[in-house]
Amino acid sequence: MINFKTDPQYYRHWKLRLDGPVAMLALDVAEDGGIAPGYELKLNSYDLGVDIELNDAVQRLRFEHPEVASVIVTSGKERVFCAGANIRALGLASHSFKVNFCKFTNETRNAIEDATRNSSQTYIAAVNGSCAGGGYELALATDYILMADDGATSVSLPELPLLAVLPGTGGLTRLMDKRRVRRDRADFFCTTEEGMRGKRAVEWRLVDELAPRTKLIEAANRKAAELAELAPRPHGIRGIAMTPIKCELKENEVRYEHVTVEIDRARSVANITLRGPAAVAPASPEEIHRLGAKFWPLAIARDLEDAILHLRFNEETIGTWVFRTRGDRRLVEAHDRTLADFSDDWLVREITLFLKRTFARLDVTSRSLFALIEPGSCFVGLLLELALAADRIYMLNGLREGDETPPAAITLTGANFRRFPMLNGLARLETRFIDDPNHLEELRGRIDDDLQAEEAEELGLVTFAPDEIDWDDEVRIAIEERAAFSPDALTGMEASLRFAGPETMETKIFARLSAWQNWIFQRPNATGENGALKLYGSGRRAEFDARRV
Amino acid sequence: MINFKTDPQYYRHWKLRLDGPVAMLALDVAEDGGIAPGYELKLNSYDLGVDIELNDAVQRLRFEHPEVASVIVTSGKERVFCAGANIRALGLASHSFKVNFCKFTNETRNAIEDATRNSSQTYIAAVNGSCAGGGYELALATDYILMADDGATSVSLPELPLLAVLPGTGGLTRLMDKRRVRRDRADFFCTTEEGMRGKRAVEWRLVDELAPRTKLIEAANRKAAELAELAPRPHGIRGIAMTPIKCELKENEVRYEHVTVEIDRARSVANITLRGPAAVAPASPEEIHRLGAKFWPLAIARDLEDAILHLRFNEETIGTWVFRTRGDRRLVEAHDRTLADFSDDWLVREITLFLKRTFARLDVTSRSLFALIEPGSCFVGLLLELALAADRIYMLNGLREGDETPPAAITLTGANFRRFPMLNGLARLETRFIDDPNHLEELRGRIDDDLQAEEAEELGLVTFAPDEIDWDDEVRIAIEERAAFSPDALTGMEASLRFAGPETMETKIFARLSAWQNWIFQRPNATGENGALKLYGSGRRAEFDARRV
Repeated sequence: MINFKTDPQYYRHWKLRLDGPVAMLALDVAEDGGIAPGYELKLNSYDLGVDIELNDAVQRLRFEHPEVASVIVTSGKERVFCAGANIRALGLASHSFKVNFCKFTNETRNAIEDATRNSSQTYIAAVNGSCAGGGYELALATDYILMADDGATSVSLPELPLLAVLPGTGGLTRLMDKRRVRRDRADFFCTTEEGMRGKRAVEWRLVDELAPRTKLIEAANRKAAELAELAPRPHGIRGIAMTPIKCELKENEVRYEHVTVEIDRARSVANITLRGPAAVAPASPEEIHRLGAKFWPLAIARDLEDAILHLRFNEETIGTWVFRTRGDRRLVEAHDRTLADFSDDWLVREITLFLKRTFARLDVTSRSLFALIEPGSCFVGLLLELALAADRIYMLNGLREGDETPPAAITLTGANFRRFPMLNGLARLETRFIDDPNHLEELRGRIDDDLQAEEAEELGLVTFAPDEIDWDDEVRIAIEERAAFSPDALTGMEASLRFAGPETMETKIFARLSAWQNWIFQRPNATGENGALKLYGSGRRAEFDARRV
Repeated sequence: MINFKTDPQYYRHWKLRLDGPVAMLALDVAEDGGIAPGYELKLNSYDLGVDIELNDAVQRLRFEHPEVASVIVTSGKERVFCAGANIRALGLASHSFKVNFCKFTNETRNAIEDATRNSSQTYIAAVNGSCAGGGYELALATDYILMADDGATSVSLPELPLLAVLPGTGGLTRLMDKRRVRRDRADFFCTTEEGMRGKRAVEWRLVDELAPRTKLIEAANRKAAELAELAPRPHGIRGIAMTPIKCELKENEVRYEHVTVEIDRARSVANITLRGPAAVAPASPEEIHRLGAKFWPLAIARDLEDAILHLRFNEETIGTWVFRTRGDRRLVEAHDRTLADFSDDWLVREITLFLKRTFARLDVTSRSLFALIEPGSCFVGLLLELALAADRIYMLNGLREGDETPPAAITLTGANFRRFPMLNGLARLETRFIDDPNHLEELRGRIDDDLQAEEAEELGLVTFAPDEIDWDDEVRIAIEERAAFSPDALTGMEASLRFAGPETMETKIFARLSAWQNWIFQRPNATGENGALKLYGSGRRAEFDARRV
């Protein structure tokens, strides 16, 4: 069972040092600290456990240390920055674990860029020693790469020549679209095992600046201070404590404070219920700060994020996630409104961005997502995003016999209009009604209206709106049918249908690059008996089937 | 050996009827006409041979029948429009053939849209009978889908429920980005084996219009006539004859009039040499029309296209294509200029678009592309696009000892600035220098200059510029090294590095959708012993590994 909840006091691989507006994250991997048995984390290589700590640190810095304007990522070891993902760990892992691992590391690197872009918490890399593969991809996720100018230090993406796979954590895409490395140079670089160093690495845009080894951290601190000057923090800004979330784990149930996951193994379904807030919404930013991690939008985001990661990694055969909500629509609406009313507040901004990243995890989750909207639900504003992220939405039309709960209704708020953009840069509604600005205008006119099933269906907001007579059968058949389809084909289809419209670096990484990598991970040339990934370290040379596909 | 050269008189599967501004392409597949043994082409299903004819027809209509403003695609059979790609043929094919086949069919469907968009030769589909999978994807490539309103006629994408693969010819992407079908409806549609018919198909945007079965062709003709009215042709416009291209095929050589391919099997290399024009450029559109298929830019495009398709399908293990040119730079420049000077002429426009499509085939070819620029070469304007399409460009700096040929030079022309856009909508130069308008401006200022190696290198137009002393070794090592890498990893890397910047429907189809499909094609759930694609038609049910990846 993989656990994603951690805290700096438990870190085994990262050292977090704070110095006013500058933080330093030093990678110092414990060789014997692998999350699974069977390999040693040599040369500052990482496995999922190392990345879980990084994810925690990146998140925590935003909430607990808003005074930090710049984060230096460096190595705590002498001669190596980071050798990338541990190959032996990858070799031992199942295909689905490999893919899930890449997805999670990609999400963490995106979170680094999100902090830089949207919270002015700018990451810079101080590369001291060999920086290879995933190590360089980590550096690429920062906005400024400083590199020691010595014989031991280089950057490289040796995956292709060494392992017959791709750099799978966004390296190729970031070389092209972020650092604008010329394609022919990128071609040469990615086929050169030993990588590049010194002036040529700068000239080719692979790094931004060189410094003598002994002056590297000094130079990094100078750059960090410069960035901090450019992004001044409000005086006396103080973070909130990200106290541990509560989670009770049973065989077929995971119970968080605001989210419950019930596993129906016979149907390969996870029934995920999110509960609306129990209290009135705070009336001021001060009150939100006082509530801190207890503030409902933040608390439910944390629960949901953990549930997503848990299900992805620990429940691989549960192919369909069915989302429901329970609660008072007006309380959800009021909480949703605080995010809009106090959007200038740093904490509110961070919560909004966290929700954005959490919903974005759903969009790239390789599970079928259904939303069921029933009487007593509270799909309003930010919770409606859950439904809009789903592959299908069923909404019960009318009452349930013998139940006095009024008919279900959904409510659009400003939150549904790009407060939580997808990775393609558009709101889920914009993606849903791509190139249809008139309809979006019509929907905008319906903000705050309670929309019952027929109206919601007419407006295109739900897929089907069966009445009580048809509901049970229709929903049951849809869910059972899903379990009968090929999981792989569903993954490919869903990845294709969820992202209409424009593409960004992120969508390219998750769809284009990941799909190629998934393919390559399956090919005998990489993972067959004589494949390069299988033979790595054995001293034997891989044998390739020369046919180009 | 697969042959891509054909002619309406040899068609076995398509009937082309011409009626002034309206043409009709009727699919009437010969069941016993498969391009390979072992299957029957039942239910108007297609294999590569059927698609080779379609590709020829689409091409020919543009050059030989410019008077045609609208093309009706329909079925020549009674009860079936098209059942899509023949599953038995796919099941018998190798992975690389399947992928290559999908690529070619995608290119043909893109050519249909290119004709509609850029030549006002608008395609419409008249769906008479069951229209499934690749059959519906063919309809999706047209700009207007008319469907018979009867019990026998429906549109469907049953690949996922039936075969555990994706619709691989752009179906998913076109549903979303072209027809703007809502994602949840697309999800339902793509998981519904029997597809949809009648009013619901219109309401869901799956088709544009219904007509009673007996009035379908009448309605199609009416729509076609309408479109012809909107895109009037010049009076008395007459096409040119696309006479057969000459091609001499030996074991290790293919010799066309303007292109020679020499295969070096020891190095897995195809040495491809393009020859510049032998005669002066025509001085008027009339002269170009008189030359017709002999006009050098058209003639060399046809040779190059055939060479690309031949090498892709018939030489799978030849992983590196090395491009060279030989000829008089000034003659290339003069011919290049005719395309700019007479760009209003319909034939010049068609030739330009044909070159665009041919170069675009290179960008999506899963082979390493190198360009070698040596003394005596003529990489000018349109031929320089070949080099800009390459993964690496080597240019010899200076003279060769004992050779009086002057040093190599390259020349930019207007052709290199979006006359032949890539599938991402940008010129190859714009993609190469993404987000760098200043440098593009500088390059524009160098149009028509002869740029020798050092200058070309400084301007970023070539990758490396070794002198004679280093040339042989450097080029040899680069080529040999390439042959030692995993072909799959190279394919994934090249596909990622070639397309910096924006994405379009076409790039999504070739990279995102194709990569997912390639992955799925390799998965046991599809192609394993108990996979759905393997068991199709056997009456046995596929067994799926339920793990979601």
